[in-house]
Amino acid sequence: MTIFSKIIRGEIPSYKIAENEHFYAFLDIFPLAKGHTLVIPKVETDKFFDVSDELMAEYLLFAKPIARAIEAVIPCNRVGVSVVGLEVPHAHMHLIPINSVDDMNFSRSKLKLSPEEFETIQQAIIARL
Amino acid sequence: MTIFSKIIRGEIPSYKIAENEHFYAFLDIFPLAKGHTLVIPKVETDKFFDVSDELMAEYLLFAKPIARAIEAVIPCNRVGVSVVGLEVPHAHMHLIPINSVDDMNFSRSKLKLSPEEFETIQQAIIARL
Repeated sequence: MTIFSKIIRGEIPSYKIAENEHFYAFLDIFPLAKGHTLVIPKVETDKFFDVSDELMAEYLLFAKPIARAIEAVIPCNRVGVSVVGLEVPHAHMHLIPINSVDDMNFSRSKLKLSPEEFETIQQAIIARL
Repeated sequence: MTIFSKIIRGEIPSYKIAENEHFYAFLDIFPLAKGHTLVIPKVETDKFFDVSDELMAEYLLFAKPIARAIEAVIPCNRVGVSVVGLEVPHAHMHLIPINSVDDMNFSRSKLKLSPEEFETIQQAIIARL
């Protein structure tokens, strides 16, 4: 079972943003920016483009209101999207508030936020959903 | 009108990969890797997450067979996805063959390919669709 499946099951805690029957969204704990969120299908699929057509049709519809809530809460030019998937074999989409292209460079050092900071961001995004 | 709308209309040439009623895919002429492809909705929308729900539901379904064809043709671990959108105000999704996270770093220098190289890649991807 992937670490993400354990998060979905609540076996590993997460700062949950939203959930429905097929998808789960939560704050990345190694964020490139405040508000950096992961959106994952509940079914484990390694490669993003192996996700079923049914879920592919729902993926961006689930992510869209979350991305718009992030953009409303975090000062940024817009919310960027990244799918890399070389580390955890469970398809996931990054939603990242950006001001420049370098804000999506995963080689950059990640932010270190306190639990209180994560919770403040989580609650602010949820309040805009 | 954006440069992408001119490409869709054929006023600016492109190495077209696929097209349907709502979307158009073509090789990025400033590629991070061979096979780097842009997928755009035909309707001009600046921000990706302002694209209509109808198109959002179709976006990844249109991109999926293209991504899988790229992966079949270009040696890579998988095809990554990036949406940045700070340069051209017309929503677009990058499909990029990757082997490491740094392969999606847009700060990297772009490949310089000849028209013949672009055409060879274009035909190889189309042949797998």
